[in-house]
Parts: sequence; structure tokens; C-alpha cells
Amino acid sequence: MLAILPIDNGRYGTKEMMEIFSEQKKVDYQLEIEGAAAISQSEIGMISKTIGKEIHRAAMSGKITAKRIKQLEAKSDHDTAALVESLSEKCSKNARPWIHYGLTSNDLVDTSNSMQMRDALQIIEPKVAKMASILAKKSIKYSKIPAVGRTHGQHASIISFGLKFANWAAEMAKHVERIEEIKKRILICKTLGVVGTGSLMGAKSLEVQRRAAKRLKLFPAEVTTQVVPRERYAEYVFELALIGATLEKIAIEIRNLQRTEIGEVAEQFKKGQMGSSAVPVKRNPIKSERVSSLSKLVRSQVALSFENIPLWHERDLSNSANERFVIPTVSILVDEMLETMTRIVSNLMVNEKRIVDNLYITKGQIFAEFVLEALIKKGIPRFVAYRDVQRVAFEANDKGMLYKDAIKNDKAFTSKLTNNEIDSIFSPEKHLGASPKIISNVEKSVHKTVKKFI
Amino acid sequence: MLAILPIDNGRYGTKEMMEIFSEQKKVDYQLEIEGAAAISQSEIGMISKTIGKEIHRAAMSGKITAKRIKQLEAKSDHDTAALVESLSEKCSKNARPWIHYGLTSNDLVDTSNSMQMRDALQIIEPKVAKMASILAKKSIKYSKIPAVGRTHGQHASIISFGLKFANWAAEMAKHVERIEEIKKRILICKTLGVVGTGSLMGAKSLEVQRRAAKRLKLFPAEVTTQVVPRERYAEYVFELALIGATLEKIAIEIRNLQRTEIGEVAEQFKKGQMGSSAVPVKRNPIKSERVSSLSKLVRSQVALSFENIPLWHERDLSNSANERFVIPTVSILVDEMLETMTRIVSNLMVNEKRIVDNLYITKGQIFAEFVLEALIKKGIPRFVAYRDVQRVAFEANDKGMLYKDAIKNDKAFTSKLTNNEIDSIFSPEKHLGASPKIISNVEKSVHKTVKKFI
Amino acid sequence: MLAILPIDNGRYGTKEMMEIFSEQKKVDYQLEIEGAAAISQSEIGMISKTIGKEIHRAAMSGKITAKRIKQLEAKSDHDTAALVESLSEKCSKNARPWIHYGLTSNDLVDTSNSMQMRDALQIIEPKVAKMASILAKKSIKYSKIPAVGRTHGQHASIISFGLKFANWAAEMAKHVERIEEIKKRILICKTLGVVGTGSLMGAKSLEVQRRAAKRLKLFPAEVTTQVVPRERYAEYVFELALIGATLEKIAIEIRNLQRTEIGEVAEQFKKGQMGSSAVPVKRNPIKSERVSSLSKLVRSQVALSFENIPLWHERDLSNSANERFVIPTVSILVDEMLETMTRIVSNLMVNEKRIVDNLYITKGQIFAEFVLEALIKKGIPRFVAYRDVQRVAFEANDKGMLYKDAIKNDKAFTSKLTNNEIDSIFSPEKHLGASPKIISNVEKSVHKTVKKFI
Amino acid sequence: MLAILPIDNGRYGTKEMMEIFSEQKKVDYQLEIEGAAAISQSEIGMISKTIGKEIHRAAMSGKITAKRIKQLEAKSDHDTAALVESLSEKCSKNARPWIHYGLTSNDLVDTSNSMQMRDALQIIEPKVAKMASILAKKSIKYSKIPAVGRTHGQHASIISFGLKFANWAAEMAKHVERIEEIKKRILICKTLGVVGTGSLMGAKSLEVQRRAAKRLKLFPAEVTTQVVPRERYAEYVFELALIGATLEKIAIEIRNLQRTEIGEVAEQFKKGQMGSSAVPVKRNPIKSERVSSLSKLVRSQVALSFENIPLWHERDLSNSANERFVIPTVSILVDEMLETMTRIVSNLMVNEKRIVDNLYITKGQIFAEFVLEALIKKGIPRFVAYRDVQRVAFEANDKGMLYKDAIKNDKAFTSKLTNNEIDSIFSPEKHLGASPKIISNVEKSVHKTVKKFI
Repeated sequence: MLAILPIDNGRYGTKEMMEIFSEQKKVDYQLEIEGAAAISQSEIGMISKTIGKEIHRAAMSGKITAKRIKQLEAKSDHDTAALVESLSEKCSKNARPWIHYGLTSNDLVDTSNSMQMRDALQIIEPKVAKMASILAKKSIKYSKIPAVGRTHGQHASIISFGLKFANWAAEMAKHVERIEEIKKRILICKTLGVVGTGSLMGAKSLEVQRRAAKRLKLFPAEVTTQVVPRERYAEYVFELALIGATLEKIAIEIRNLQRTEIGEVAEQFKKGQMGSSAVPVKRNPIKSERVSSLSKLVRSQVALSFENIPLWHERDLSNSANERFVIPTVSILVDEMLETMTRIVSNLMVNEKRIVDNLYITKGQIFAEFVLEALIKKGIPRFVAYRDVQRVAFEANDKGMLYKDAIKNDKAFTSKLTNNEIDSIFSPEKHLGASPKIISNVEKSVHKTVKKFI
Repeated sequence: MLAILPIDNGRYGTKEMMEIFSEQKKVDYQLEIEGAAAISQSEIGMISKTIGKEIHRAAMSGKITAKRIKQLEAKSDHDTAALVESLSEKCSKNARPWIHYGLTSNDLVDTSNSMQMRDALQIIEPKVAKMASILAKKSIKYSKIPAVGRTHGQHASIISFGLKFANWAAEMAKHVERIEEIKKRILICKTLGVVGTGSLMGAKSLEVQRRAAKRLKLFPAEVTTQVVPRERYAEYVFELALIGATLEKIAIEIRNLQRTEIGEVAEQFKKGQMGSSAVPVKRNPIKSERVSSLSKLVRSQVALSFENIPLWHERDLSNSANERFVIPTVSILVDEMLETMTRIVSNLMVNEKRIVDNLYITKGQIFAEFVLEALIKKGIPRFVAYRDVQRVAFEANDKGMLYKDAIKNDKAFTSKLTNNEIDSIFSPEKHLGASPKIISNVEKSVHKTVKKFI
Repeated sequence: MLAILPIDNGRYGTKEMMEIFSEQKKVDYQLEIEGAAAISQSEIGMISKTIGKEIHRAAMSGKITAKRIKQLEAKSDHDTAALVESLSEKCSKNARPWIHYGLTSNDLVDTSNSMQMRDALQIIEPKVAKMASILAKKSIKYSKIPAVGRTHGQHASIISFGLKFANWAAEMAKHVERIEEIKKRILICKTLGVVGTGSLMGAKSLEVQRRAAKRLKLFPAEVTTQVVPRERYAEYVFELALIGATLEKIAIEIRNLQRTEIGEVAEQFKKGQMGSSAVPVKRNPIKSERVSSLSKLVRSQVALSFENIPLWHERDLSNSANERFVIPTVSILVDEMLETMTRIVSNLMVNEKRIVDNLYITKGQIFAEFVLEALIKKGIPRFVAYRDVQRVAFEANDKGMLYKDAIKNDKAFTSKLTNNEIDSIFSPEKHLGASPKIISNVEKSVHKTVKKFI
Repeated sequence: MLAILPIDNGRYGTKEMMEIFSEQKKVDYQLEIEGAAAISQSEIGMISKTIGKEIHRAAMSGKITAKRIKQLEAKSDHDTAALVESLSEKCSKNARPWIHYGLTSNDLVDTSNSMQMRDALQIIEPKVAKMASILAKKSIKYSKIPAVGRTHGQHASIISFGLKFANWAAEMAKHVERIEEIKKRILICKTLGVVGTGSLMGAKSLEVQRRAAKRLKLFPAEVTTQVVPRERYAEYVFELALIGATLEKIAIEIRNLQRTEIGEVAEQFKKGQMGSSAVPVKRNPIKSERVSSLSKLVRSQVALSFENIPLWHERDLSNSANERFVIPTVSILVDEMLETMTRIVSNLMVNEKRIVDNLYITKGQIFAEFVLEALIKKGIPRFVAYRDVQRVAFEANDKGMLYKDAIKNDKAFTSKLTNNEIDSIFSPEKHLGASPKIISNVEKSVHKTVKKFI
């Protein structure tokens, strides 16, 4: 039977990210922790050097399968016990008592969670960086294209079309910044036993943990209960959801700009791809819609993650079942969304003709702001100027006239502005303001942030 | 490779509920809709009777497989088109043009969603009813057992131990009431085509839909866009999450009552089951903890469902991807939680000795409320009485004395109350108040609500 | 100093709804409960008739002020104690011991919450009904106006413009249905004392509660702990948030239809109202935007309400502080949103010219669906027909031709369809399908649901 | 009439934090922005030095009142216009045209939001630091006190009681770390005009913004639309909610430890404070319950903040109304919760006797883990040892014997362990493991993080 949920049934999820959350990989991570603990213990004389090496070697041998552990678990009904036993099977009798020495099941769970998050970020971070970089390049490309700026869904003013991309590029770059910052709090190695006291290893447990963490490329826990504090997980989920929200923001803008009535961009449409049965030339932004949809799902996991923070005493288990969903789901979906959005943006069809056309659908009224300022610069008090600008705007609107023509026919304006000046006001390319400079700054700053990932 | 998420990897989910969301079942539902539409159309002369019957028969034949549709989809890249084609393969040339006549893809999607919800409620509602019934019986069983009532985590007064179950029973019965109410809004058949106008079928489309709905045991849509309004789905998710919240409430109470320090109940512990490695006699309420955990996940889907309500115009697709997760997830997990909680409650170990013992751990101070009232009934003004009650309580506490003894040694009390009266005040069974009556009422009312499901 | 939050600083909230949550009103509600309890107790002989009447009269006298209670609270540091004392001040010495007899503070809190919700629904329900009614009338008004139906933000097909209103009308009417259903679960009178056992009143407490509930126009609690189960409050918040979501849906549609590029509707614009300083003729749908904004806030309270459900044991206080925000906030804001949206819709400017214009901006391609069906009806296999329809659509699009003209110039079509037939296909009014019938049905059904409120 | 919501009616909120969100303060912030913009423009020659200084002086004069602005707003119906006019009233005719030059209303809104968040963090951060410091001191104080460690609500092992505080201290210190990191992304000065192009100021707008930001102790925006990207606000709300979650975690632990049956801690109880009317010696942890309650409210605002991120195009207004609630609410409540929790923890009554007593309520079974390890160290295979440990545990449990006595009576143990060894195993102070070292490390690390705030 095919799986039900769209991650396991193959609909969403890249192979590389899915791999991290596979059962064998989880086993491998946990064996690696056992190995790292044993060799660390042996390095400081807590157990013998030979035994430490033996356990480490067996744990890292790649010969212990999830399948074998399942078999053993069927007997003991305890997954960690089964993992330890499977490792015992590969070790000598002497070494066996020292496997899992001083550890508790949850040391494996939480530390392997950290390893999953470590590897998930290893995949996600470069994709975020790449996305930022692509967006920055697009912003440069469209830096000099005047376009309608819209507020409240209404034409408001003129922007550089590239400015949209620059906003997104900067926002993606911030995510790189955030990921770098949170790693030290999230990628935690915890080997402090049942209730976080270091258990049987005593004071030396901290040194064991420090060494194990280093081997696992994680940060040693400062202090824990049985579990790593869950406010760390909330931070991971939040940051991934926030990346999702930026992607959603881009998706919604694309969906809006692709509207039949706007048509400034379109998702790539494969030659020969079947259009809608209703309107053959209809091109639905379904990839962007999917990103919108998945982002809502990812975001919903933040509230949930908060509720796992206040566990009772040295821990209760009320985080456990839902974390089996949350961590893979947000990692896999955000990765998927990054892939999708990277493809959308890379292949985005930008219709420069429609961008220009749209500047003029209000018959020049979009330039009213600049007419106003021109009058003020000529010394007309703002309120007087505003009244005139508005009066003529409404008249032109009522008559269906071009605003420029109406201006040129009105004394209030012609007495102050020459025809040339008026023509210049009505030139969109004059109104990009600082956009090119902003875009160029963003491009440089993004480049600096992301270069090491590309 | 084993599935990643704990629904598809077999960890959570009953067979019967999983079945509803399987791919073949989805195909079967959608074929059933095609069949119901065709036969309905033929009944009113929109298409020929023979053709209607032929399409219906082919659709219901059970011979069209999800696998075949996948093959066809690989070519057309459109799932509904593939389903229609697979049905065409089983029909005569004459019938083929009339398959899917007047329908749109989403008619199949939304109506089959309704069929899934219909069948999911068919599973869930009797379990809710059964749960209510079990709880009601338990409430009767413990109706006469006095127990500590706690507020703010503190001993507050005396209740009947059965009152806890009665509260839960009544709450579960309300869920039956709610499910009955929401069905008419949620289980919607929609066959109104692309933008909800009835499309090619014209005014007769309403009659087709009415008949199809009847066959599918659904309610015909009154009015739609391309899609059934998503506030209906939010209502489904809300109600399931609310059932989850009641189960969570029970779970948290059990976890609290099972604390080492309280010990009034315990989840059943299998003979020979391995205890915690730390403390052999330790019994962790892990099933209840799991219910707590999953409830948080289920609840998180409510916020998400709200965000799918305001779709743009006649629909956008931003509900689609996340609904593939939400509807199966909440249905499967709430069903799982019901199963779990039914087992927990049915086999709950109630330690009546600890219930009694706990009544006395405050050395009788829990009876202070009743001493107070006895004094008032003897005519002592409330504030005077309160001062005395409190004074002696603190003295007894400081000296480690039984409160009853302290009372019997204090003039303020002995001058008003006889020894017999005092002994009576300190008898817990005198303080059940209306509990037995409430419990008996609840039992009757629950029985009335749930009887048809049991 | 002006209040900070926009409810108390006068920005949002109608006078009538604010009143319900005023401090004096809360006091009045709670006194009314004391009165109802006392008179009920006297009716069944639990206390003397004279005393019952005296307490009831004093409680309902309207002479006890929130101010006086504040003064008394300053001494006792206990709000219920202060309320009881303030009532004592108005009663004879004989009556005083019987004030608040058998009750606990939270009986007042929860039952007065119910009274607030009762009165809030008393305000909200008729507004919902009125809104449904207005929308139904608008749907009739625009029933025959063909308009673009959009899916994925793209022109998809033709609808009756009135269908939009009919969808909303039906959805609002469902809210009336839901409100009617939930009242019995939400508007609960609870006078069962400290831990829900009826306390000192014993078995008779149920009869007291039944009578008090009747006086207060509430439903008596079946069973409670110290508190009414909070899943009821979640249901209230959910239903209000769901009303909010429908309003938000309407708001977003208006915002989309008011876009400069679409222009089919506009919020009313007061003569002389200052336009945007940027573009004088710009009209921002700010009221609809506000509804969108507030709906998000209201919805956020649902998740919170779920978390108040699983209180510990016979209650903990972790619901209390946030409920002081949640209940007034959702009630006041949804009422405000209803007021706003009623004004928006009542005065909505519908630009029928733009509605028509928009039908043609794809140069007739929106009719492709109907061309396709016409061919099929002439016996052309669907796939062949589709290929032709699409081929000509793309050609016309590339050449900037009207689709109708392109069709008339193509043998694939002219060999099957007459010019008259083609003209008829390209007539939007022929494609309303069942819209008028659906609209008329909705209007009738809405009328039936809401008539008692109007 | 008293305000309705518990912030404005005086229930929650410190004076210093409330002040930041007062209307006059908002005006002052916005005037400061006008002043900073003008003086910056004059510094680079965009406007005259005299005029820049004049506007700046007037803006900073402290003479412009919210009241006056309200009066002006009553006429213009536009709050920014009124603010500009009020400033004009204090300036010469020459200066007036240059007030608000190149700015848009939302430059004031967003930049003043940043100033509010700047000042809110100025209040919150030292309180977080102080809290961390107090907790660290408490952890040292109780560093050597053995206490029960509980998992799943069950006695699991032995910890240092101080370890609880160390966990919290470290978590609070992380919040300081996070606040430091997010400031650069959140405290943004934006003066780039209508659609983020720098508007009339052109390329120089960036230099103006850089200078204004410096004066306002903010960071200049890199790139914006009309608004600062709202993912920044989500980060602020998230971090505050996360602080809330840590406080909630502490609150829930205190509530659990204060249970009648556990009694290890209690919130301070004022001499003479009225106890519960039910049980005079009852002490309800109502402050901690309030923190729990408010945290849920604060957390609910995170989901909402996510929904404000994907605004349409260069902005829509759907963030505006709810941000009027969200930013003050989370700032004021988290500050309130910090105050409350600081008082709770500072005055927390720790009952060391109950801590010791609780170690023994399982009659020594809590030491089973250590007996097991002792056997293993003597060479007994783990599974054999476990069987014996468990067998005797169950026997002792059934007979009500002390576990130590049962061990001393059983050959399986006496054959391997001397009486002295057994006594040592049953000494709780031997089982603190690395706790003291962990605690001391935490204390040092916390001190380092927080010292600059204290």
C-alpha cells in the first residue's frame, strides 16, 4: 500500500533530506553517539583504551542494520536496549558491559535529533544562500525597469522592478545570518544520563560530553534535565517556518503579479504542457500556490513547539510523539519549498511589456505625486498644490483623459511648469529614486553573506 | 525504506482508519462520484438511461485500480484526466463522451474529501460514544468513594472520586452531540463544475447534485465556488481537535493522579513488562503522555485550517497541499488517541487505599471548610468562625497535630460542637454533596445520547 | 492617560458591546446570580422565603456600585468577598449569613462569563443574520450580471456576479445555525460550589441550580469541577473566529476586486474625503483591510482557548488571566468587524462597466470552454476538440486577435458551427448556468434562517 | 468607565513599560524622527542648515502634545498630517515646506515601532539578566541538596536540587544572547518614503537614513517596500514569547513542586494573608498560575505575527490593526511576567525537610539504579543484576519493607556487597554526580553573560 501522507508517498521531499530522517540513518547517528561516548571515555581513562576503540570501531562499522535492531526490539520492547544489544553482538564479551556506559536512552534521542538538525541545516543553508544570490542577481537585472508600486492593492507610485527582488534577497540573506546564530544553541550533544547529573560518570561526565560533542560536530550541553531544553527546538522550528514565510511572501507576490489582469510575471510553462481545460492559454501559478500552502503547514508547527517547552520536572514524555512528526516535517517541507521557489524564480518569465503597460493604465494619474512635488518646489504651498493636483485628477478621470493632457490644459499648472518640465515629470525612469543604489548595496551585502556557501 | 512519518511507518493509526485514506480508496470514492453523477443525469434525462447505467456499473465494478490510473497519469500529467480515462477504458465508445459530464476535477476532490470525513466520523463517533459510556460506568462505580478534590494543585475539598469520570463522560457525550450537528455542514456533495454555476448542466445541475448526494449519503451543496467553502473543513478539524482536547484532559489528570506522590491511579502494567531501568517499580504513564503529545499536534491544525478559508475569488490552490496532510492526520490521530484512551480507562488501576490515605495527608485540615460551616450553622458570624478555624488550623499545622484533635481541644469549638458532631464533620463520606445524584444524572443522560452507537 | 490597547482607547468596539464587559456590568451580573441563587434556595425551603426575597431584592436593586466593591476589596484583597460584603451592607442581619450560601467565587465568575456571552450573542447573532440578509439581497440584485470567474488568480470561466454574494450569504446563515446550536453548551449556569459537588447544599443543589439557571436565562450545568469545562469556551471562541473568517473572506475578495487593475467594486468613498497623497484618485479598501487584520487577531485566540481545556484536577488558575483578555477581545472585535463589513457591503460600489470590460480582456479566450463543449456536442471526440480549441487559442493570443474572430476563420470550427452558433457561444449571459436558481434558493433559505432576527 | 482589558484597567503592566506605549510617547517618538530626518537632510545640504536645526529643535522641544494633534486630526482625519501640522505650528513659514520632506506616514509608524521595541528591550533585557543571575545564585545555594529527580511524574533518580535552578538560569542567559543578536534586525530606522525608493530625496535618501538611524540609536534599513519587512516583527514577538515560555516552564515546575503532596517549594505567603476559605493552610501558587496563563496569551501572538509577513506588493494594511495590539501586549505582559517571576523566585520558600522526606517515600526504591550499578561493577552481568534488583524491589514493595532492608536480607546482594557498601549506596548525597560542577559552570557562564546589565 502506498503511504498516505504526502511526504512518505513521494509527493514532497528531496532524496537527500529524506535520507536524514530514514530509519537506518537514525540508527547510524545513534551508533555514532555510542562510539563517540566510548572512545571519549577511554581517552580520559574512564574505560580502557582497547575497549573504547573496540566499541567505537563496531559502532562505526556500518554493519549494524535497522532491521536487526527491529528484530531485537521485538523481544525487549525497548528500542534503545535493542540498539545496545545489536552493538553488543559486534563486540567482545569484555567490551559489552561498557557499551552505553553512563548514558540514558534519551541521550541518544536528543543527540541524534541534533545530528539530524545539523545535517538538515547543512542542506538548507546553502539553498537559502543560493536563493538569496539568485534573487540579488535578478534585482540587478531589473534594476532600471520602472514599474508600478502598489499599496493597498492600488497603484501608488513608481519603483524599480528590481526592488522587489532586492527585498527578497536581503530577507533570504538574513536567514543565513540567523542560521549561523542559532546553530550554537540548537546543535547540542547531551550525554548526561537519566536526570542530567552525569549519572554514573560523575564529574568527569562533562569532559566525556565535551569530547563526544567535538567528534559529533556538535556543541556540548551546558546543563540539562533528562532532555535538552525544548526552547531550542522551538527556535529551530521558528527559523525554518520563518524561511517558509519569506518563500510564501515571494510566492504570493508572484501569484498576484501573474493575475490575468496584471500579467507582469509568470511561472515557467513547459512547451506542450496541457493548459487548463477551461481556458487553454490560462497559466496557473500552481508551484507558488503550493509554496503558500505548505508554508501555512510549516508555520502551524511553531505553536506546537512552544507547548513542548514546559515539561514537568526532569522531563515528561509529552513532547515525544509529536516531535516524531514536527522535526522531519518542517525540515523536509522547507527544503522542498526552497527547491521549488529556486526553480520558480530562476525560470520566472518577466513580461516587461506588461510592466510598462501597467504604468499607464491609470492614464498617468500615478504621476500625480510627482506633479505635486514639482509645484511645491516652485513655491506653491502644499495644500494649495494638493487641491489642484486632485481637482484635475478627478476631472481627467471623469472625462477619461490622460492626466498629462489635463495638466497641460490647466492654468494652475501651465503657469508654473513648462511643457518640457511636465514631460519630464511623466517619465517613469526619472522616479526610481535610490532604487538602483539600494539594489546595488543589497547585492553586495548579500554576496558577502552568502559567498562561502556557493 | 521504511516511511518517515509515524503514520506511514506504522506507529500510529488503526487499520480501518488508514484504509479510508489509502490511494485505492480515494480512487474508489471518486469513481463512485462519477457513477452517481452519471446515473443521476440519466434519471432526469440529461443523458440516456443506458449510458448512465453503463458508466455507473463500470465505476462501481471494483476493477479500476489506482495502479492503472498512475500509469495513465504518467502520460497526461493530470490525475483527474487519468481517472476519467481509466473509466473510459471500461466503457463503450458511446458512453465515453458522457463520463465526467459537466464536472470539474475539484468536484471529485471535495466530494471525496466529504466521503472520507463521512467514513472517518463513522469510525470515530461510535468510539466517542463508547468512551462516554465506559466513563459513565466508571463514574457510577466510584460514585460513593470520597476523594481529595484539588484546586491550584492543593487539597481543596472532598469529592466523589466518580465525579472525575462523570465530568469526562458528559464531555465525551457532548462530542457525540456536536458530531451529529456538524455532519449536515461538512458532508457535502458538490458537482457544480468549474466555478459553481452547474456548468454545462445548467439549471438541472442542482437536481443532478441532489440525486448524486443522496446516493453518496452526503448533503448537496447549496452554493459553492469551485470549491466547498473551507470554513466547513475548519469545523471538522476543530471538532476533532476538541475531542483530542478532552482526551488530553483525561490524560493529564491520569498523569497527575499517577504521580509517585499521589498514586491514586495507574495505567495498566503488563505482568512481566520491564519497568524503568532506574526504578524497577516505577510505572510511567506513557500512553497518557502520548495522548497529551498527539493532542498538541492535532490542535495545531486548527489554526492552519482557518487560513484556508479566505481563498481568492472562485478558488486558489493554497489550501490544496496542506489539506493532503491535515485531513488524514487529524482523522488518524484522533482515532488512535480514542483507541489508546479507551484502553487506558478500561484498564485503569484505581488504588482506593491511596485515595483514602490522601484524604488524610493534611492531617484533617481538608475538613476545615466543613468545621467552618458547622460553626456558622450554630450561629457564629462567618468572620468570627473563619478566624477560629484558621487559627486552630495553623496551630495544628505548626505542632504537627491532627486537626480534629486540635479542634477537640479548643474551647471555641467545644463550646459549640459535641464530640459526636465533630466526628461526623471529619467523616469524608458525609461530604459527597450532590455528587451521587449528579453522577447518576450524567450516566442516564450519557446513556441516552450514546445508546444508538453501542 | 489615554488607554493603550485599541479597544480601551476607543478605536474599536461598539458602545453596546463594550458595555457588557464594563466593570459595573460584571458586578450587576454577579449580584444577579447571588439574587437568583438566594431566591431559588428560598423557593425550595433551603432558606426562608423572606430572606430569599430580601437578598434577591437587594441584589437587583441597582444600588450596589463597582466603586463600593473596590473600596471593600482594598481591605479584604478578595473580590468575591467584597461583593458579598457590599450585598450584606444592603441586607438585614438575619439575611446576611445566607448570602452566597453554598456558592464559591468561581460560581460567580463562570456564570457571569456565561451571561456576558449570552448578551454578546444577543448582539452578534442579529448582526450576522442582518449581514446574511443584505448579502442575499445583493445576490439577487446581481443575479443576472455575467462576470469573470477566477481560479488561481486567472480568468477561468463565467459566473453570475451575484453568486459571490450568495456564497457569502449562505455562509453567514450557517453561522446563525451554529450559534443556535452552541448556546445550550455555552450559556451555562454553575452554582455547584468549590469542587462541583453542590457543596453545603447537598443533593438539593441541583434543584437550586436549575431554578437559578432559568431565572438567568442560562442552561444548568450537568456536571462540573470547580469550573465549567473550558472546551465550551473554546467553542465560543471558535465560532466567533469562524464568523471573523467569513468576514475576512469577504474582505479579501473586496480588496482583490478593488485592485486598480480589476476595479469591479470599491468601498464607498465619502465626497470630499482626502484621497491618498500619492495618487489622488486612489481609493484604498482600508475598512476591508482592517477586517482582514482583526480577523487574524481573533483567530489567534482559538489556539489559546484550547490550552485552557486541560486544567489540573478540580481546576487550576492557568485559564484565568488570559480569559480576561480573550472573551472581551473576541466578542468586541467580531462585533466591530460585523458593523464594519455591514457598512462596507451595504454601500459597496459595484462598477458594472468594469465587470463587463473584464470579461473581454482575454479577447474572448474565456469562452474557450464553451467552444469546446459545443464541438463535443457536435460529436467531435473531446481530445480532438481540445487540441483544436487550444491551437486556435494560442494562435489568436500570439497574433493579438479576438478569439471569436480566430474561430470564425478556422475550418475546424466553421465546418461544425454556424456563425450564429459561434456568436451565441460568445454571449456571456448564456453561461450563467444554474447561478440564478442557486441564488434564488440561497435567498429563500437565508430568509428562512434569519427572519426571526430581523 | 474603567477600561475593559486588563492592561488598561491597571491589572497588568509596569509603569515604565506602559509609558512606552502611551499616546504622548508615540507622538514624541514620531517627532524625534521628523527632527532626526530634517537635521540629517540639512547636514548633507539637502535642506538648509538653519531650517534643519529649526525643525529639529521644534520637534524635540517637548511642547507638542498628543492632545493638540488629536484636535488637528479631527479636521484632517489623517494622523500623520495632523502631526506634521502640529510641528508646522512651532516652525517658521520658511521651514514648514521642509517638514516631513521625502517621508511617508509609514516611515513614522515603523520607525517609532522600532523605538518602542528598542526601549522595551531596554527594560526587558536587564530583567532577563537579573532573573538569570538570581537563578544562578539559587542554583549555587542548593547545589549540595540531594532531591528527587522525576521523569514521567515518577520518581526516577537523584539530582541536586540546585540543578533545577541552573537549568533555568542557563535558559534565561540564552535569552540575553538572543536579544543581543536580534537587535540589529529589529531596531530598524526606515525613511525611504512611499514605496521604499527614497522617494523625492533620491539616491541621497540612504545617507539621510543612515544619519537619522544613528541619531535614533537604530539600524538603517537596507531595503524596504513601504514597510519594514514583518518577518522582523515576528522575530521580536517570537523572542518575547520564548522568554515567556521559559518563565512558564519555571512557573509550572513551582506549581508542581508546591502541590500538597510534594511541598518542596511554596510561593511566599504574606503574614496575615487570607488563606483559601476552604482549607485555611492551603497556599495556592496563584502568581505562578498567572504566569502560566499569560504565557499562553503571549505565545498565541506568534502565529498571528507570521500572518503579517506576506503583505501584498509594496504593502497592504492587513498588518496594521492587529499590530496595535500585538506589540504592546507582548511587551507589557512579558515585562509583567518577568517582574512576577523575579519576585516569586527571590522569595521562594524552599522546604528542605520535604525535599529530604520525598527522597524516602518510595522506601528506598529510588536507589535501585545505584544498587544495580554496584552489582555490575562487581562483575555481575547487567541482565542478571537487573533481575535481582527488580525481584527484591517488587518483594519489598509488596511487603511494605524498606528496600535497603530487603537488600540486606537477600543473598544475591549480601554475597556481593558489604553492609557498609550498601549503606553508602543508600546515601543520597553520593549521587549528585556532576551536578555541583555543572552548576558552578553555569553560574560562571551566566555571570559572564549578564554582568553588564547588573
